[in-house]
Amino acid sequence: MNFNVKNDTFLRALLRQPTEYTPLWMMRQAGRYLPEYRATRAKAGSFMGLCTSPSYATEVTLQPLDRFPLDAAILFSDILTVPDAMGLGLYFAEGEGPKFQRPLRDEAAILALREADVDKDLRYVTDAVSEIRKALDGRVPLIGFSGSPFTLSCYMVEGGGSDDYAKVKTLMYNDPKLMHHILEVTTRSVINYLNAQIEAGAQAVMVFDSWGGVLSHAAFHEFSLAYTRRIIDGLIKEKDGVRIPSIVFTKGGGLWIEGIADTGCDAVGLDWTMDIGIARQKVGDRVALQGNIDPAVLFASPDAIRTEVGRVLSSYGFGSGHVFNLGHGISQHVNPEHAAALVEAVHELSRKYH
Amino acid sequence: MNFNVKNDTFLRALLRQPTEYTPLWMMRQAGRYLPEYRATRAKAGSFMGLCTSPSYATEVTLQPLDRFPLDAAILFSDILTVPDAMGLGLYFAEGEGPKFQRPLRDEAAILALREADVDKDLRYVTDAVSEIRKALDGRVPLIGFSGSPFTLSCYMVEGGGSDDYAKVKTLMYNDPKLMHHILEVTTRSVINYLNAQIEAGAQAVMVFDSWGGVLSHAAFHEFSLAYTRRIIDGLIKEKDGVRIPSIVFTKGGGLWIEGIADTGCDAVGLDWTMDIGIARQKVGDRVALQGNIDPAVLFASPDAIRTEVGRVLSSYGFGSGHVFNLGHGISQHVNPEHAAALVEAVHELSRKYH
Repeated sequence: MNFNVKNDTFLRALLRQPTEYTPLWMMRQAGRYLPEYRATRAKAGSFMGLCTSPSYATEVTLQPLDRFPLDAAILFSDILTVPDAMGLGLYFAEGEGPKFQRPLRDEAAILALREADVDKDLRYVTDAVSEIRKALDGRVPLIGFSGSPFTLSCYMVEGGGSDDYAKVKTLMYNDPKLMHHILEVTTRSVINYLNAQIEAGAQAVMVFDSWGGVLSHAAFHEFSLAYTRRIIDGLIKEKDGVRIPSIVFTKGGGLWIEGIADTGCDAVGLDWTMDIGIARQKVGDRVALQGNIDPAVLFASPDAIRTEVGRVLSSYGFGSGHVFNLGHGISQHVNPEHAAALVEAVHELSRKYH
Repeated sequence: MNFNVKNDTFLRALLRQPTEYTPLWMMRQAGRYLPEYRATRAKAGSFMGLCTSPSYATEVTLQPLDRFPLDAAILFSDILTVPDAMGLGLYFAEGEGPKFQRPLRDEAAILALREADVDKDLRYVTDAVSEIRKALDGRVPLIGFSGSPFTLSCYMVEGGGSDDYAKVKTLMYNDPKLMHHILEVTTRSVINYLNAQIEAGAQAVMVFDSWGGVLSHAAFHEFSLAYTRRIIDGLIKEKDGVRIPSIVFTKGGGLWIEGIADTGCDAVGLDWTMDIGIARQKVGDRVALQGNIDPAVLFASPDAIRTEVGRVLSSYGFGSGHVFNLGHGISQHVNPEHAAALVEAVHELSRKYH
């Protein structure tokens, strides 16, 4: 298959086709650990200033690729753009992380929730996708993404980040119907959002279920996985004759990997707690795997990084179907030279497995 | 077997002997959600004031038993008593949680680490155990406990709580030998500490590996589980002809349940993410299981609590070997009447499974 891209290693690995080495990218690769990112952010004035400007979003999306020979780019954006477009009023309180002006705190607010008008209110995202594709000029594929309905609903009910998820879990246990209503409206918004990114040029898409891992087994299946499956079902699978692979990442989801693989996605993202060789035994005949080095390894020396890269590669073993990544986003405190050591080690040490 | 206790349901369940109902206790059952606890803490002046006074520790240990018909008491103490006795200087900064005056920040400090002198520096704990046993007067068994060497080492290197475990993981990846030295000295201290609690009257012991779940598969086995196994090996197994069962709880350890069950412990504690029926299929012929309702269920209504209790009991199924518990400590924001609803539901709904 021709993917219309110079380096198609990432897309081939997602579809478990042969590659010469294991491709990699890093979650949150465009981020605060890079001085050039901090400089652009200072120009933009704020985090959302970066997200809402297609030209700034393009600039920061490309920064890590100019530094490291990464095998994929990922749209620079935030998962909370969707609830913002659903009318909740996203803002960033100084030093406090994201918050909503109008969190979902009662039945009336929940029943009044409206689907995002993607063409109108998320146009800045699809414009960024188009501009990034132009700027990439076919170097590597561009990944689009969204938060999962459950993860977005957590933020929408809590009104921001949370330690104990008390508000959303109280709603979920006391009034599962209302919780399902939020998830339903959010799911339709997410499907439209991801398909709009694909139409604008995203060559693969990823669903981040960052908070699915805080649920019990039964609640995960009912309130998170069921909606992830709906999203995968609703995605555009092919554009201009080219497959658009999908990746599902549930942080803390190792126990549920079979169910995640059964959603119909092409690849499952793993955090660093599960052995990737065991994961491959469980689902490697059905999906590719993306991951999964402990992101804290990047605090250690280049020698230690190389050792741990070797461990992950050897655990996955021979053959295609592996996209190397961190098990979670890169920390702002990482030295960029350590990220360079990781990229080099993956490219060098992986050749013998292909 | 005669356990010298009026209600031996908890001990029998840990040893997978028949019981009439499923026994339960709640992690952190003596705590801030109880107004009587807050009153005693105010008298004591501080959290450590409670821990270091055998009479206050006895008072708060018994408070939840006077309110709810729980099937076990657990020593009121803190896992950081051990590193404190190892010379690190525990203190509580206002509103910041526990900290150490002398965290392990360089090789010299690590090599100078000394084993805890349990008889001398942790005498206040064993005195509390004796006094609690007297006050319990055989009502229910008393559980002693310790943090796992890995969890304690995290605190000792980080100097307090942590979001990213950057310091301890940097040490672990850069200099595994030094990390093993800390774990070795801590393990010897923990074995002595738990055995001293048993000698003083603890009728079961539990190891809290609260932070083992932040490790990769390989690191968990090397830096956490290997030392847990050493502890189980080193425990007094029987006192005055009565078995002293042991429980190992690793938060986020569902992926590693087979290895945990193989440490030789009598029971494995589960957080709320793993289905307890699946856990039973994997290891239920070797160990009892303790857990595992989502502690956030207690924020919901008594009706919702009852539904979720029914779900956990039915997932475990028929027969002995289940100690009901929360999947993590009870939140300070829980209404005590909701805890009462949980206890009632467990006792009532579990009878049909025995």
